[in-house]
Parts: sequence; structure tokens; C-alpha cells
Amino acid sequence: MRRKQTKTGLPPGSVIFTGHKKVEEIIIHYLQYDSEYLDQRTFENHAETVFHQSQEGKVAWYDMRGIHDTEFIQVLGKTFDVHSLILEDVADVHQRPKFEEYEKGNFISIRALKFNRTSGKILTEHVTIYFRKEFIITFQETDSDLFNAIRQRIQSSKGKIRHKGADYLAYALVDALVDNYYLVLEEIEDVIESLEEKVINNQDANIKGKIHGLKKELLILRKSISPLREAIGRFSKTDSPFVEESNLVFIRDLYDHTIQVMDMVDTYRDMLNGLQDLFLTEVSFRMNKVMQLLTLISTIFIPLTFLAGIYGMNFKYMPELEWEYGYFVLLGLMAVIFVGLLIYFKRKKWI
Amino acid sequence: MRRKQTKTGLPPGSVIFTGHKKVEEIIIHYLQYDSEYLDQRTFENHAETVFHQSQEGKVAWYDMRGIHDTEFIQVLGKTFDVHSLILEDVADVHQRPKFEEYEKGNFISIRALKFNRTSGKILTEHVTIYFRKEFIITFQETDSDLFNAIRQRIQSSKGKIRHKGADYLAYALVDALVDNYYLVLEEIEDVIESLEEKVINNQDANIKGKIHGLKKELLILRKSISPLREAIGRFSKTDSPFVEESNLVFIRDLYDHTIQVMDMVDTYRDMLNGLQDLFLTEVSFRMNKVMQLLTLISTIFIPLTFLAGIYGMNFKYMPELEWEYGYFVLLGLMAVIFVGLLIYFKRKKWI
Amino acid sequence: MRRKQTKTGLPPGSVIFTGHKKVEEIIIHYLQYDSEYLDQRTFENHAETVFHQSQEGKVAWYDMRGIHDTEFIQVLGKTFDVHSLILEDVADVHQRPKFEEYEKGNFISIRALKFNRTSGKILTEHVTIYFRKEFIITFQETDSDLFNAIRQRIQSSKGKIRHKGADYLAYALVDALVDNYYLVLEEIEDVIESLEEKVINNQDANIKGKIHGLKKELLILRKSISPLREAIGRFSKTDSPFVEESNLVFIRDLYDHTIQVMDMVDTYRDMLNGLQDLFLTEVSFRMNKVMQLLTLISTIFIPLTFLAGIYGMNFKYMPELEWEYGYFVLLGLMAVIFVGLLIYFKRKKWI
Amino acid sequence: MRRKQTKTGLPPGSVIFTGHKKVEEIIIHYLQYDSEYLDQRTFENHAETVFHQSQEGKVAWYDMRGIHDTEFIQVLGKTFDVHSLILEDVADVHQRPKFEEYEKGNFISIRALKFNRTSGKILTEHVTIYFRKEFIITFQETDSDLFNAIRQRIQSSKGKIRHKGADYLAYALVDALVDNYYLVLEEIEDVIESLEEKVINNQDANIKGKIHGLKKELLILRKSISPLREAIGRFSKTDSPFVEESNLVFIRDLYDHTIQVMDMVDTYRDMLNGLQDLFLTEVSFRMNKVMQLLTLISTIFIPLTFLAGIYGMNFKYMPELEWEYGYFVLLGLMAVIFVGLLIYFKRKKWI
Amino acid sequence: MRRKQTKTGLPPGSVIFTGHKKVEEIIIHYLQYDSEYLDQRTFENHAETVFHQSQEGKVAWYDMRGIHDTEFIQVLGKTFDVHSLILEDVADVHQRPKFEEYEKGNFISIRALKFNRTSGKILTEHVTIYFRKEFIITFQETDSDLFNAIRQRIQSSKGKIRHKGADYLAYALVDALVDNYYLVLEEIEDVIESLEEKVINNQDANIKGKIHGLKKELLILRKSISPLREAIGRFSKTDSPFVEESNLVFIRDLYDHTIQVMDMVDTYRDMLNGLQDLFLTEVSFRMNKVMQLLTLISTIFIPLTFLAGIYGMNFKYMPELEWEYGYFVLLGLMAVIFVGLLIYFKRKKWI
Repeated sequence: MRRKQTKTGLPPGSVIFTGHKKVEEIIIHYLQYDSEYLDQRTFENHAETVFHQSQEGKVAWYDMRGIHDTEFIQVLGKTFDVHSLILEDVADVHQRPKFEEYEKGNFISIRALKFNRTSGKILTEHVTIYFRKEFIITFQETDSDLFNAIRQRIQSSKGKIRHKGADYLAYALVDALVDNYYLVLEEIEDVIESLEEKVINNQDANIKGKIHGLKKELLILRKSISPLREAIGRFSKTDSPFVEESNLVFIRDLYDHTIQVMDMVDTYRDMLNGLQDLFLTEVSFRMNKVMQLLTLISTIFIPLTFLAGIYGMNFKYMPELEWEYGYFVLLGLMAVIFVGLLIYFKRKKWI
Repeated sequence: MRRKQTKTGLPPGSVIFTGHKKVEEIIIHYLQYDSEYLDQRTFENHAETVFHQSQEGKVAWYDMRGIHDTEFIQVLGKTFDVHSLILEDVADVHQRPKFEEYEKGNFISIRALKFNRTSGKILTEHVTIYFRKEFIITFQETDSDLFNAIRQRIQSSKGKIRHKGADYLAYALVDALVDNYYLVLEEIEDVIESLEEKVINNQDANIKGKIHGLKKELLILRKSISPLREAIGRFSKTDSPFVEESNLVFIRDLYDHTIQVMDMVDTYRDMLNGLQDLFLTEVSFRMNKVMQLLTLISTIFIPLTFLAGIYGMNFKYMPELEWEYGYFVLLGLMAVIFVGLLIYFKRKKWI
Repeated sequence: MRRKQTKTGLPPGSVIFTGHKKVEEIIIHYLQYDSEYLDQRTFENHAETVFHQSQEGKVAWYDMRGIHDTEFIQVLGKTFDVHSLILEDVADVHQRPKFEEYEKGNFISIRALKFNRTSGKILTEHVTIYFRKEFIITFQETDSDLFNAIRQRIQSSKGKIRHKGADYLAYALVDALVDNYYLVLEEIEDVIESLEEKVINNQDANIKGKIHGLKKELLILRKSISPLREAIGRFSKTDSPFVEESNLVFIRDLYDHTIQVMDMVDTYRDMLNGLQDLFLTEVSFRMNKVMQLLTLISTIFIPLTFLAGIYGMNFKYMPELEWEYGYFVLLGLMAVIFVGLLIYFKRKKWI
Repeated sequence: MRRKQTKTGLPPGSVIFTGHKKVEEIIIHYLQYDSEYLDQRTFENHAETVFHQSQEGKVAWYDMRGIHDTEFIQVLGKTFDVHSLILEDVADVHQRPKFEEYEKGNFISIRALKFNRTSGKILTEHVTIYFRKEFIITFQETDSDLFNAIRQRIQSSKGKIRHKGADYLAYALVDALVDNYYLVLEEIEDVIESLEEKVINNQDANIKGKIHGLKKELLILRKSISPLREAIGRFSKTDSPFVEESNLVFIRDLYDHTIQVMDMVDTYRDMLNGLQDLFLTEVSFRMNKVMQLLTLISTIFIPLTFLAGIYGMNFKYMPELEWEYGYFVLLGLMAVIFVGLLIYFKRKKWI
Repeated sequence: MRRKQTKTGLPPGSVIFTGHKKVEEIIIHYLQYDSEYLDQRTFENHAETVFHQSQEGKVAWYDMRGIHDTEFIQVLGKTFDVHSLILEDVADVHQRPKFEEYEKGNFISIRALKFNRTSGKILTEHVTIYFRKEFIITFQETDSDLFNAIRQRIQSSKGKIRHKGADYLAYALVDALVDNYYLVLEEIEDVIESLEEKVINNQDANIKGKIHGLKKELLILRKSISPLREAIGRFSKTDSPFVEESNLVFIRDLYDHTIQVMDMVDTYRDMLNGLQDLFLTEVSFRMNKVMQLLTLISTIFIPLTFLAGIYGMNFKYMPELEWEYGYFVLLGLMAVIFVGLLIYFKRKKWI
């Protein structure tokens, strides 16, 4: 959530990379297609990328993996006439999700999610998409190929993607990322269920830490999905010249998904709260049971010990001490008290 | 709430069944009627279904029970010209409730509810309805005849259903499902009341688990009714050409019902929260009472035991030990202390 | 809040009585008036009611007490041309408050309240009002004369009620019921105050149950007033032909009252929450004080008992035992320890 | 917050005094002014008040202190042609704050606040203002001169008040009352700060009662400021003919103040909640520390007492008893155990 | 948050300094520039300031540091024709953030933040900005040069600031202050993280106070950022003649930042709440563990002490006492009980 300190005091539109360098070599993948034509190239060294302007009726897609080379981003921006505020957001990995319409194109910022089950942490990656009529650029932080499924769909000409423009491609890319949210949330659901089982079956001192951690993750997740919902909502109602109206039905469908994702996050948070309550109840319940049992034991022995104390006194004249069976009478009396208290406690349902 | 992993990465409109196969044989029931005419058939083998286009002035209703045969759904879709996004939602059992207007017809997604009292779980079934002017298809997950009451109403020509179009039938179907919600909620209310009684009368270690479970169920229920309310709200304000304005008054009535259902769910959740608080208070109250009683017993015997300890000492010169009635004086003193403490605690209202 | 199971599966507009029969004989009171004319009759046997159509310039009011005779309600509905959905709501005692505009008249549903101080429960009665230009029907569940004050105002021609139409009468009736809410809320406030006093002065094991019960009542009350506010809000902004614009100022005043009632309910709920917190704090405070005192007593005697134990040992060579004043020295030492600990605890403010 | 029971069942516009008579003699102060002219009179006996109609270009202000004489209020209302609903609100001391536009003038209801530091209670006074073009009446419950500062401003012709109309005067009066809210809130802030200090420094059994009381006061205060904000909001956007547009900028400024007051109340409530949490934590923390210390003492002495018990036994053959230094060895052992446990507890940070 | 008492009762537009004098000498810095021209002067003695009217096409900026000289502010106001309500807000250090459009210029009030890590307090400074077409005045409470970065940008002609008008400068100034919020929030995040570590690793009696303090700071911070968001929102949608439409894109970007800041504050508050819960759980967990251990020790020794008590009795006939190895048998029995209980508790997972 942080914004590098180096950014304060700079004019707007300053393209500053605010993240950690997560990839050594920036790779750029280029793709141009229409329903019949397909051309693709991968530039392993991004500095050597050839910039093609998109041709009439075809969609050109530049997919840049690695965003630490801000100078290159500025060159790219100038080449394709991208607003400087957009370039700033591309390099700012703390940018919240948003959809912005600019005069010359639309901009989408979104986070890709990944759940690391070992650490219980949600890893996020800053992804940005800029598109206009027949042209689209995407920026990812790492070289993990987030959009592979889409690229394969284009290559195999599956669905209607090859017959549609850059707006549909933008939709498909965001849709792929949101689809991925479901996977993350399913994993979280699994974790919650396993936590619930642990809470019910046995107290595990570490559970409270795990619940706390997961709640924190979901809290942060919520803060990132909430603006996304808003952004997709605006996307779905856009009257931008770069989005065809016939495609809005798909974006509305996507909007539906983000609402569902939001609902799931909220549900999971409520579940975790309920789980935490249950945990605390269970713990104090068990603790109380133990304390009660221990106290009961003390309570049974204290009068008995008192009796033993009585007959341990050294008074000269204590008639009971002289009785031949005094000792056994007392032992019997103690047994009676012992059993009597046990029965009493049993009846009171204290044991 | 899950969405099958197999779905991620597919183009929109991919018809994928995301549930568990709950019915062996898919049955399709066909019905065509107007105020005077009635024709019905049941296709036990869905593959042999004959597709009739609806006739002028009549309403044709296909009711498909079982949705795992996605290929057949696609054939059906093509035959009756249904948008592929609708078909996707038909087969996706995790689809949240919604009302969507498409160019060629309207689509409603809703969940049928059933409360399993033994397990305390709410079972849901994914139901979808597609309708246009004189034509309607419904899809259910199982072969339980959810719409039997409506079908009987049509057959016996009760009410005005035979005089109205497909929009009214759609309304009647949704209304029947929402009516069923009341039954489920009444059962839940019964469970809450029995829980409350148990909390007040006696502590039952399992109650906390039951309250937790019911809260979770209501949480999930709420997440499914909340979008339903929204959906019916949009339905009631639709200006779709497939819904007659004179029928909107009924849909508004239905909307009223969904709000009431929502209110009931919220009320029950608040009640459960209150019940949980009461339970915790009761438990700690009872536990405290027990602990206090036990501590009081200890407190009474500790000074007495101390006294006994005093006269158990072996000092050579302890005058009291020599007294003839020393022992009895001490016993009397102990009795006085014992009774005195009892009275003191009684007065302080500690016993 | 329940809706009878018998209702599910019926077509809309089915007039089903969903309550308990609360009155043996249905009474209908008839009143027709203008500023100069007044005619009234009571039909003890409702089946013999004579239906007068309202005369030009006069207001006719039928007040029906008892709504279990649904057949009669349907006859009434047919006679005065009332929509079947309205008749359904008239007989459904679980209908939430609402204001509905129909083509031929307006419909208001509202609950009359009564607080039973002994049981701490709020009793509600389902009241419905249907009115058009010069005609009004009211339905009550019981024969308690809820509208007596209004009737007397008409008879004695107090205020401007005789100079106004059916819309003003409808307003006056609702106003009378809402006015009654204040009385109920005042009684609740009294109960809260007496509870607060009890909490502060002494712990009463039953208080937690009473607070819980009252919270539940207010929860249910809130759920019934919240839609009422909405309903009156819509009433106050209506452009129905059956409501004169000059009367809207009164309805706005009434709306103001419902908001105030809502505020009061919310305030009382917050107060009860605060009271519950205070109660829990008080209880644990007192319990802690007791436990602390008891523990202090133990703590004082435990070292003393230990000392007594030391000199109760049977070692052959224990020089202190041989001392002439050893016993008294020890007693003195014990007294010093006793007093010393008392002073120490006092200083630490533990006693 | 109550509304007298005597009010239920009365027609709207019934002028009923619902408060306690707080002033013996009703005083009416009359003032008429323009930028050059100033005339003022005080009628100690309100029955002898002379009613001047306002003169062209001048502002006439009647300030009535004491509102229990409802008959006189009705006479006043008739003389100056005031709507009966307004007169009802003037006499109803439980009226919530509001701004209402009537055909012949505007009406403002507001509460004057005063904080009684000794009792910790907020005292409120019902104040109402009615104004039209060149005429204003104010009503106060008591004879405390709430508007003295404004009157002095008029007399000394400070600011632009003498050059403006009745709408500006109305604004100035409300502004004076809202300004007073800041003083009340500052006093509350002082109380909160002193409570916080007490919580941190030492536990004071009464603090929980004080926090509870202040929370309740703020709860009630909130309920009265929340509608005020709304009322002033409507005032600031009015297009009433009695308010000059050039004065709206001042009313917007006033609106700003009410929002700030609302914010402060909310902040103080949150602070009190935080303080209550802190208090509970502190109390249980201290209590726990005490209990732990006491339990530690017991735990140290219990094994020692056991050892003493061992050597207090009367077995014939107990070799240790015969040893010459057995007693001293045991004392040494006990000392070692004592110190050892102390060190152990110290290391565990339990002491 | 306070408003000086001296202010109540004064007419609106009274310029009263409500803060503490934080600077001895008021300094005014003057700057006039266009894309080619740059003139700047610093008036160490503010009384000697020369007032230049802005020249055609150039932007004039007066930056006044120190606002206690209200007379001078009034002179300044008169010279540059500023509305008196603005001047009042300039001197009122408790003014909440706002954006106001006046006929002759726009006014922005905002708070500059600084986090004092030692005390854990957020220090705020009241900053106000007034601008019209080619003219801008800024007011700061202290002489800390908040706008240094902007001034350097102007001097070095970095970015497009020299090519834009006063509206862009106003934007840049607010942006600089909001940028600073990120730094404050990052420091707070650091503190939260260090607190979390402390909570998890070891209980520190002071942590609860620190969490409470930070929560309070964030509460107050929230109350000041919430209106700021609103203010910037209005700024970003302004149609004021003093703001060029082409600059609105930057202000929208700034609006985005304030939303993000707000989100961060909310997230941190939620985190602190979670942390507080965790802390309480940890504390009671640890405390319970200790209490349980101590109680276990007692429970083990109490039956043993009872046994020792038995054989400390002085009955004449106690056969066991006569046995030669009675003592050792008993010691063995005690050891068995001791070990047995240890194993039992171990198995129950109580140790």
C-alpha cells in the first residue's frame, strides 16, 4: 500500500517506479491480428522492440512484462501518444484499481492475485491496461505469463475474440484476472474450513494468529477489490468512443463477477469473525472446564484435610483419640464426605 | 459459492456445468396453453424432445430438470435463439440471483431453498428462467418438481394465469420460489426459538456450535437473497417489451415479499447475535456462581484448618493443650467461626 | 412475522386470513358525514351490513373490526371495486406497513401497537385502510375501538375534520395510530430507566433476561416502523388524485412524527446496548471484588498455616519447641504477619 | 424526548404545552429597526403586549420568553397570521429540530444547549423562530436571555445586521445558538480528558458510571443535532421568497458549522467507546495482576506446607526425624524451594 | 478541534485568530511568474509587504507564514478584495477542510500533517489557499516551508507548472500536502507493525496504551480527511471560471489520492482494532496459562497434603503407623499419586 517517499514533491506525470524490481530482463510480447491475420513476436531485449502502429481493421497488442525501466515506458508513451498521468500510474505499483477515460484512450489499473498457502499471504501484482480503437498495451510487474490463456484463445481463434476489437480484448484480459480471483478465494475458503475444523476439534495456540493473519489479508484484499468493483462499474457504463456498445453486455457480465467476488470476500470476513468468536468461546469454555474441575478437587479435599487437622491436635483430653476404632470411624466419615460431595457435584452437573 | 476451476481462462459464453450431477435422467416437461387450449407432454429422454415454436396467442413452457448435459443446452439455445451468456449462466450453479434484459428475451436466475432440520443446513438449488413474448424455458438442477403448484394452477385454470402471457408465468414461478422462502425461514425461526429455550433453561455445550452454524447459514442465505431483492427490484421496474405493464403490479407485490424475506433474515441474524450474547452471559454467570461457591467453601475452611494446625504444634509449653475442655472450647470456637462466616456471606448475598 | 404455510402456492390476490381469530363477532361501524350532515350505524352482525355508496360531497366510512371472514371481505371488495391484491393484504396479518397507490384508490397498511408491561412484550395489531375520493374502509383485527378518538372528533365536529375529505380522514386515522406509538415508547423508556436503576443498585440475575427480551422486542418493532416511515414518506409525496394537495402539509407533519418515532426506537436500542454493557461490567466488577477478597483471605492464612505446620513436625531436635515462650513468640509472629499483610493489602488498595 | 400523553387523540394544530413551566412571568421583548431607526420595549406582563405590524423597510422582532400560556400563543398566531401547525410546534417542547417553509413564512425549531458539569447532564431548551419578509418572532422556554449578544449587536449596529432583513436576523439567531454548541462540546471534551487521565492513573469504581452517563448524553445529543444538520441544510438551499439569495452564503457557512458539531459529537462518542475499552482492559489487567500474585503466593507455600505435613506424621519409623540436624536440613530445603520458585517465577516474568 | 470561546456571539466574517501563536515573525514570500518571467521577494517584516496586483498573463503568489496578525489579514483581504467569510476561515485554525466557490475567487482549507514518532501524536497545521484567475494567496500557521518543493519546481521550471495558471498552482500545492499524508501514513504503518511484533512476541503492559493512543490519533485524522475528500471531490467537479477545464484531469487524479489516503486510514484503523483484539486474546491466553499451571500445582499437592494430614493424627490405634515401612510405603504412594496426576494432566494437555 505504500507509495515511495521519493515520489513526494514531484510534478504529476512523473514516471517513478515505486516497487521492487521483480524481473531481471523486461520482455515485450507483440501480437497483431484480425479474424484472418495473425502476427506475433517476442522481444527478449525490450530495448530492441520495434513499434508498429496498428493497421486499419487489425488489433495490435503490446504486452510488457517488467516495469522498472521507466525511461523506456516514457519512450513507449511518447511513441503511442499516451497521457503522462497514465504512464505515472503504470509505474506506480501502489496504484489502486481504476478505470479512467482519457481523450485518446482508456486506462485500466487492476491487481492480479495469488495465494501463497504456506505463508497464508495474498501476493498481488500491479497490472495496467491501456487501449484505444485498434491498439492495446498491457503492463505486468513480473514475467509470469498472466494472459497466456487469452493469447492461446487468440492463436486458436476460439470464441469470438478474433472478430472483435481492442475493447473486447481489454475486457477479456480483465475477465481473466477476475476469474483468477475465484481461485484465490476458493483457496482461502479451504483454509477457513480447515481452521474451523481445528477450532472445533482441539485448541491450537497458533490458530488465533492464523485467524488474525487471514483477517488482515482479507482486509487488504477488500480494500483493493472495492475500488475494482467501482472501476468495472464505470467501465460497463462507459460511452467512450473506444468501446463498442455491443461489447458492453460482456463487461456487465464481468461487473457481475466483481460483485460476486466482493460478496465472497465479505462473506469470508464475516465467517472469520464468527470463527474467531467461536474460537474464543471454545478456549474460555475449555479453560473454565479445567479450572472448575481443579477447583472441585480442592473443594473436596479441603474439609477432609481440616478433619485430619482436628485429630492431629495435641490436646490432652480428646476423647475420640482414645476410642479403639476412632481412626477407622474417621476414615469412614471422610469417605462418606468424599462420596457425598462427588454425588452432590454430579447432580449439580459440575463434573 | 465456488466456481469450478475448469472455468477460468475460457471465453465468455462457454457453457460449463459447475455443479455435481444430481439427477440421472434429464426430464423435460412441455406445456402449451391459452385460456381455452392446453397441451402437455413429458419427455423422459431429453434427447428426444420435440421443439415446438410457440403459436400465436399461446404460451409455450419447456421445463428442464437436470442441467448437466451442456451440449443439449447449447442445442436448445440455438433452437430458440438464446444468448450464449444466458446459457453459460444456466449451467453455472454458482450464479448469483439476477434479472437481465437481453435483446431477444429476459433472463432470471434464482435459488430454490430447502432447510434440512437434522443437519441444520440450508440446501439450495440453482433455478433459471428465460422468457420472451409467448415462450418460456425453466431450468432446475434436480427432478424435484418445484413448479408443481403452478402447473396445477394452469391445468385447473385457477386464478388468471391462463389469461396472461409468459411474463405472468415467469412472475408466478419466481413468486412460488420466494413463497417457499417463508417456509424455510419459519423453520429457522422454530430452531432459533428452541435454541433460546435451551440457552435459558440449561447450558448445553453444543449450543454454541449450533448458534455458530445457524449464523453461518444465515450469512450465506443473506448473500443470496440480497442480490435477489435487487434483481426483483429491476424486474418490477422493467420496461422490457416482453413484460406487460399491467403485470408490473404483481411483480411489485413480489418485490415487497423479497424485502420482507430480507428483513426476516436480518432479524433472525440479529436475534442469533443476541442469543449468542445471552448464551455467553449465561455461561459465564453460571461458571462464576460455581467458582464463587467453591471459593467460599475454601475460605470458610482455611481459617479453621489454620486453628487446627496451631494446636497440632509440638511446643513444650502450650497452656491451652493442658486445659481439660480445651478441645471442646476450640471445637465450639470453630463452629462459631463457621456459622459466623456463613451468616456474613449470606448477608453479603454471596451465597 | 410468519406467513401461514397454507398460503404458499396460491395465485396472487388469494384472500387468506393468516392470523388467529381474535374476535367472535365481526362488527362493522358505518359513518357518513359532511360539515353539516352526520349519519352513523353499527352492524353487530356483519352479514347484515347495508352497503351505501358514498354521496356527492360526503365522506362514507366503513370500519370493520375482525377480518377472519375472508368471504365477506371479498364481497365487500367486489361491492366497492377494490383490487384483489389489496384484499389479500387486508387479510394477511403479517403484511408489513406500506402505502400503495392503485388506479381506483390508495391503500395503507400499518400496525397498531400496545405494550404489555407484565410480560414485557409489544402486542401488534394489523390495521389496513383503503380510501378514494369520498370513501374509506378500515380493517382491524380485534374489536378494540382504535379509532374512537377520531370518531368523537367527527361527532363533536372538533378541528377541521368535518370540512375535509376521505384523504384527511385517512391521515387522521394513521396519525392516531402513530400518536399511540409515543405512548408505547414512553412505557418502554420507563422500563429501561427502571432497569438501569436496578443495574446500578444491585445485581439481579434476571436483568440480563429482561434486557435481552426488550432488545428483541425493539428489534422487531424497528423492523415494523422502518417500512412505515418509508410508507408515510411516499404518502406525503403522493400525487394521487385521491389526496388533495392542501392536505399534504399534515401528512408531512405525520412523516416527521414517524421519523421521530424511528429515532426514539434507535435511541432506546442504543441505550439498551449501553445498559447491557454496564450490566456486564457491574457483574464482573462485583464478582471480581468478591473473588479478590476471598483470595486475599486465603493468601493471609496460607503462610500462617505453613508456620503451624512447621512446628507440628516431629523432629527429635527442634530447639524452638523447647523454649518456654516459643509458642507465644510464634503466636506473636503470626499476629505480626497477619496484620502486616492486612496493612500491605490495604495500601495496595486491594481491600 | 417525551410527548405528553394528553396530546394523543387531538386534531393537528392543537396548541398544547408539553413541558414543565420553567418561568413564572412570561416576558416579551419587542424590537424594531432598520439601519437608522431603532425602537425597543420590554413587556413584563405579556398580556399587555402591544402588537405592532412591521413597517415598510423595517424589521420587527418579538422575543417571547416562556411558552406555557398557549392561549396567548394562539392570540399571537391569529394576530400575525401564523399556521396552526407552527403554533403546535412552538408549544411542543419535544419537537425535533426542523426547518419548514410555509406559504406565509418560514419556521425553524432548534434546541439551545447547556452543560451542567456537576451532574454531567446536557440541559436543553426548546427554541423556535418564525420569520417572514420584515417580521420575526422567537420563542424560548425560559427567561435566560439566549439572544443577548445579537440584541447588543443590533443596538451597537456592529456588523451588517442593521442593513439586512428578518432572514439575516433569523440566521444570526440560529448561528448564535450553534456557536453555543461549541462551548458545550468543549466542556465535554474537558470531561473526557479528565476521565481518560483517571482511567490511566488509577481505577475509580465510579468511572464506568460516568462514561456510561456521558455516552448516554452524547447519544441523545446526537439524535437532536442530526435533524438540525438536515434542517440547516434545507435552510441553506431554500428558495423561499422570505430569504434573500445573497444571505445564503452565510447560511451555508452555518451549515458547515453544524456538520462540524456533528463530527465532534461523533468523535467524542468514538473516544468514549475507546475510553471504555481502555477502562475495561485496565481493570481486568490490574485485577489479573493481583490474582496472579496471590495465586503465586499460594503456589509457593503449598509444597512447603506439604513437606511440613510429611514430617508431622506420626509413623513409628521415620529415620529423618531421628537425625540431629534433620530439622535444619528441612528448613534449608524449604528455603531453597522458596527461593528457587521465586527465581523461576521471576524468570517467567510472572512476578 | 476547539473553537475559541472568544468567537461566540460575534458577527460572521469576524477575523479572529483561534490558535496559539506558533511563529514570532510573520514572513511573506512573493512570487510572480509566467513561462518566461520570474520575480520573487521575501518580506521578513510582513508589515512592509508591497502588494502587487497580478499582471496580465502572469501568476502572482503571496505565501504568508504566520496568521496571528488578523489586522494585517484584513488589510490583505481588502487590498485583494477577498470575502470576509474567507478571512474568518483563514484565521480560524479549527476550520475543517473545505473547498468553497465565491463570486470573486475560490477558497481551499486543508490541514498539513506531521507525525511525531516519539509522542505518537499527529501534529496538524491549518493551511488555506485563495485563488482566482492569475492570483493566489496561501496562509500557513508556522514558518516551516511546506511549499518548498513547489517553489523549486517553479524556479527550475520543471514540469508544466510555469505554463499554467493559478488554478494549476493551487492544485499543485494541495497535491504536495496530500502527498505528505502518505509519508505520515507510512510512519503510522511502521508503528503498527512494530506494535504487532511486540504483541506477538511478548506482553508489554504499555502496548494497550499505545494502541489506544494511535487509534485516537487515527480517529481524529479520519475526521479531518473525510471532509477533505469531499472538498477535493467538489474541486474536481467545479465549473468555476477560475479553473480551466483542461486542469480538471489533474484534480481528479488528486481526488483519487485522497480516496486512497482515506482507504489507508480506514485500513489502519481496522488493523489496530484487529491488533487490539489480538492483544487482549494474547494477554488472557497467557494469563490463563499461568493460572492453569498454578492451579495444577495446587491440585497435585492438595491430596498429598491430605494424606500427610491423615498420618499426622494422634489416634491411639492407627495400625499403619506401627508398620516398620509404613512411612516409606506412604512416600511411595505419594510419589505414585504425584506422577499419576502429572501423566493424567499431560494426557489431557493441561500442562
